[in-house]
Amino acid sequence: MKFRIYATAVLVMAAAFTGNIVQSQEIGQQQGPQYVSPEIATDLSVTFKVYSPTAQQVAINGSWMGYGETLELTKGAEDVWSVTAGPLEPSMYHYNFFIDGVSAIDPKNPHALRDGVRYASMLIIPGEASEIFEINDVPHGTLSKIWYESPSLKLYRRMYVYTPPGYEKSTEKYPVFYLLHGGGGDEDAWTSLGRANYILDNLIAEGRARPMIIVMTNGNAFQTSSLHTAPGAPELTRENYRQYSGLFEKSLVLDVIPFIENNYRVNASKENRAIAGLSMGGGHTITATTEYPGVFGYIGVFSSGIFDPNADMEGKFMELKKSGFNKYWVGCGKDDFVMESNKRLLDLLQKCDMEYEYYESAGGHTWANWRNYLSVFAPMLF
Amino acid sequence: MKFRIYATAVLVMAAAFTGNIVQSQEIGQQQGPQYVSPEIATDLSVTFKVYSPTAQQVAINGSWMGYGETLELTKGAEDVWSVTAGPLEPSMYHYNFFIDGVSAIDPKNPHALRDGVRYASMLIIPGEASEIFEINDVPHGTLSKIWYESPSLKLYRRMYVYTPPGYEKSTEKYPVFYLLHGGGGDEDAWTSLGRANYILDNLIAEGRARPMIIVMTNGNAFQTSSLHTAPGAPELTRENYRQYSGLFEKSLVLDVIPFIENNYRVNASKENRAIAGLSMGGGHTITATTEYPGVFGYIGVFSSGIFDPNADMEGKFMELKKSGFNKYWVGCGKDDFVMESNKRLLDLLQKCDMEYEYYESAGGHTWANWRNYLSVFAPMLF
Repeated sequence: MKFRIYATAVLVMAAAFTGNIVQSQEIGQQQGPQYVSPEIATDLSVTFKVYSPTAQQVAINGSWMGYGETLELTKGAEDVWSVTAGPLEPSMYHYNFFIDGVSAIDPKNPHALRDGVRYASMLIIPGEASEIFEINDVPHGTLSKIWYESPSLKLYRRMYVYTPPGYEKSTEKYPVFYLLHGGGGDEDAWTSLGRANYILDNLIAEGRARPMIIVMTNGNAFQTSSLHTAPGAPELTRENYRQYSGLFEKSLVLDVIPFIENNYRVNASKENRAIAGLSMGGGHTITATTEYPGVFGYIGVFSSGIFDPNADMEGKFMELKKSGFNKYWVGCGKDDFVMESNKRLLDLLQKCDMEYEYYESAGGHTWANWRNYLSVFAPMLF
Repeated sequence: MKFRIYATAVLVMAAAFTGNIVQSQEIGQQQGPQYVSPEIATDLSVTFKVYSPTAQQVAINGSWMGYGETLELTKGAEDVWSVTAGPLEPSMYHYNFFIDGVSAIDPKNPHALRDGVRYASMLIIPGEASEIFEINDVPHGTLSKIWYESPSLKLYRRMYVYTPPGYEKSTEKYPVFYLLHGGGGDEDAWTSLGRANYILDNLIAEGRARPMIIVMTNGNAFQTSSLHTAPGAPELTRENYRQYSGLFEKSLVLDVIPFIENNYRVNASKENRAIAGLSMGGGHTITATTEYPGVFGYIGVFSSGIFDPNADMEGKFMELKKSGFNKYWVGCGKDDFVMESNKRLLDLLQKCDMEYEYYESAGGHTWANWRNYLSVFAPMLF
């Protein structure tokens, strides 16, 4: 009897797939012909399609293309516009349609992601290079959104914490990796765009990285959580942004680290603390490690460096050197627009005779590079 | 010296706000005039805008309108299209633009949400009715995405677990509320659209609900996690969907409950277990509580009921009655298309002389109602 009830419920459910009725899904769907987008061919070229009887111009920008470059779609049968790109290298990409100039995600693609204030459709081209960040059939850690008090910022704030597979049932203490996002991003970036949780799941499963906790903070000292500006914070301008200088780094060391070490089973020593950040987060890493020498044993600077050509950081770096550290790792893309800043950092490390490792990849200031740097850096930790 | 370095980093960061350069945010932004969308006026009318020099027709559908209804935008100065809707009642809404018929989220609105396979822009009209689901200045619980083995489904699967404020540092044991989504949704729905975590934060802070753990599973027995079909699962059709009948409910009772009770500090008794679900999840709730009487003390059926008019469930319900329960709560909107099914459930409860509470709201099959039902039901628990 239960079966008969359920069978009807099932029809209601199944009908939702065919678009005949609205089930609990309230969001309207466009009418029109059936088609699939994106569609990956065996040669890894990808066809993108969108239905519009009346659009004048439809274009696409993808992360495999240059910033601002577009490719035009052409209108075919049944008013479905299409274009084929690639073949693309196995990797994770994102893209937007421009429908008469208006940026849109692909209405047929259920996978989208947010980067700061903007959204794009997501596309993974499968292959060996993508395996490291895919959701594979391995044990998965837990990803938690947790709130903490930051006395330094006088804010109650959110961060993401990854605990490795087995953490819940274990009695072991774990090392902690503080992983910082870039400008325009927030606490969500390293998991949504960076896929840090899946990368670590995979590295740990392969025995290539030690089980560790990853802490992903919000590096915007004016926000409580992604897209939420602190109550009473002034509107950000180039001028007043300076008031936040160094505050996030202070809160990281004085507020976040004690919170983590009080609330998780953690080995609380320099040798069990790593820090890395990309772009602005690399700047945060440089500040946090030089202002608080002796806190972090492992330091990673991704696509960043010394932004100010007039900065005199030698004294600070000598203090860091004196405090001792296990590893200083720098990664940057050949075509990255921060290359000059990156070179200033490398020069400084050489000048201070500090031991470091430099990894220069192809490409520029991209998440493809940052996912790669994480997968190279994490195995060196602890 | 740190200050000077940082000041330049800050300029790089600040420039990202003005759109002059690409910082770590890779997603392309449209060029065009400056404008804001959506804009809420003091009378709570809302103006929506989008820039397109070449579109032929721009329309909007919002969740305050009927499904499929649209409102046309008109082209104004600088090729910015606009329309004013409302005034709208304080609530949470979602909407899509249709640019020459193509569904798009609002490019200027950083808040969007996913419902199953579709995306929409999100809009909260502030006011008393919205306070219950807003991110208020109260202690926030932790929201975790956690993976578990389901022997019943032979799958390794993901669910969301909310632990209340203070859980991490407490030694107390907590009651558990299993909260099920509807057709087309997944484990993400009750927090993204339902804002269950913020609703509970607020209810707990006001002393209106007991601190509790909320477990939000994926009710699609063919998925491992949102948008990820189990490897090897056949393509879903109306016909083969039936093979999944009752399997999710079995996995909930036999796999999920033991996992939660082994991995969290939980009071493992009927009086400390609640279950509720919306639409398809209401069907799951009916099946789980009648197939496994004596497991759940509190039962909530939201916008659902007995879907099959020929179902003979009296025996099952009498068994449930005999097993004893603390509360049976039913909620439905006056205009909900499941009203007939809902009435069959109420008739059955009366026929079995079971004590229950019925809450009939305005409106239909909407998240506005389900957020409301949660905020009414949760205070009755435990």
